[in-house]
Amino acid sequence: MKAGVLYSGGKDSSLMAVILQNLGYQVELVTVNFGMFPSWKQAADSASSLGFHHQILEASDKILKQAVEMILNDGYPNNGLNHLHRQVLHLAASNYPLIADGTRRDDRIPKLTLNEIRSLEDSKNIEYLNLAGFGHKTIDKLSKKLFKVKKELTNINNNSDYEIEIRYLLDQVGGDGTASQIFPEHIQSRVIGWRENE
Amino acid sequence: MKAGVLYSGGKDSSLMAVILQNLGYQVELVTVNFGMFPSWKQAADSASSLGFHHQILEASDKILKQAVEMILNDGYPNNGLNHLHRQVLHLAASNYPLIADGTRRDDRIPKLTLNEIRSLEDSKNIEYLNLAGFGHKTIDKLSKKLFKVKKELTNINNNSDYEIEIRYLLDQVGGDGTASQIFPEHIQSRVIGWRENE
Repeated sequence: MKAGVLYSGGKDSSLMAVILQNLGYQVELVTVNFGMFPSWKQAADSASSLGFHHQILEASDKILKQAVEMILNDGYPNNGLNHLHRQVLHLAASNYPLIADGTRRDDRIPKLTLNEIRSLEDSKNIEYLNLAGFGHKTIDKLSKKLFKVKKELTNINNNSDYEIEIRYLLDQVGGDGTASQIFPEHIQSRVIGWRENE
Repeated sequence: MKAGVLYSGGKDSSLMAVILQNLGYQVELVTVNFGMFPSWKQAADSASSLGFHHQILEASDKILKQAVEMILNDGYPNNGLNHLHRQVLHLAASNYPLIADGTRRDDRIPKLTLNEIRSLEDSKNIEYLNLAGFGHKTIDKLSKKLFKVKKELTNINNNSDYEIEIRYLLDQVGGDGTASQIFPEHIQSRVIGWRENE
């Protein structure tokens, strides 16, 4: 069975992909793009470095604009990110009988409630999986064992999270510097290959 | 790394074991026993049918007695089962750097809260995993694909859940028939081998 894993190039979504592939699913890694900035490129590179198929899921910029409006109104990203993630999952659910993401036990945003998961599965007649059974300690250790990982400050050219297009649009709508006020700089881990290939 | 998976012989804990083995852990399947009734035998058979190592975790009957007392006081099994499961996890955590069980997204009992999980991981300096990212639809499909499964009415000789020793003690303490009032009869699925071996 085909499985679509929402993919940012990070270790969480990479691990989810490996678990599903090990269980016999035909895994495709899927990175959403809202047509604002080609932030999917890093994820495509990560997918390729692991030998997975990669697809770009083209989504309407309306979804991104709604999320950015929510974020500007709230002054913090949580609700906008959750809204975006729900929309993206519903979109991906039209293409795959099983969709998954790298949401783990400790994640708070973006995260679906149990009711939202049931509604997604029932309304789209699909299965949804994530890493809610795995904590960060385990994911960090497995990631070190399985993957070559590059750690660096996030910027617009090295990251495929929702954050990148949101930042891009935030600065356009709110003026330069708006994004930095809402999303502080942070270190990201990007998967660049299998560890055993070193 | 060694991983101990709490094991009943059912499809959930079998799937958890397979996921961990696929990720490279040395998996041991662990069935607790409180010395009241040898209910671990079916789990040992299931483990053997899949080629996993199996261990019996001998626990004090005090834990079982506490749980049965809670269940008799409450008139329903939830709190007693949760109490028992927490005690068993803390016990197993002394033997393995990583412990896991087959608790899935839809399970309500026994289930640890996020705070209980953190407390278990921190106090015992271990990792704890479960199947909270997987729903019953996915587990049912994967189980059909991976395992030969036998469905039958649960009885004292074909099941290795906590339930069996609890029932045994409930009838001893509360009189014959007490257990049946609290645990209604139900169909169970027991793993009896790999599907591909058919």
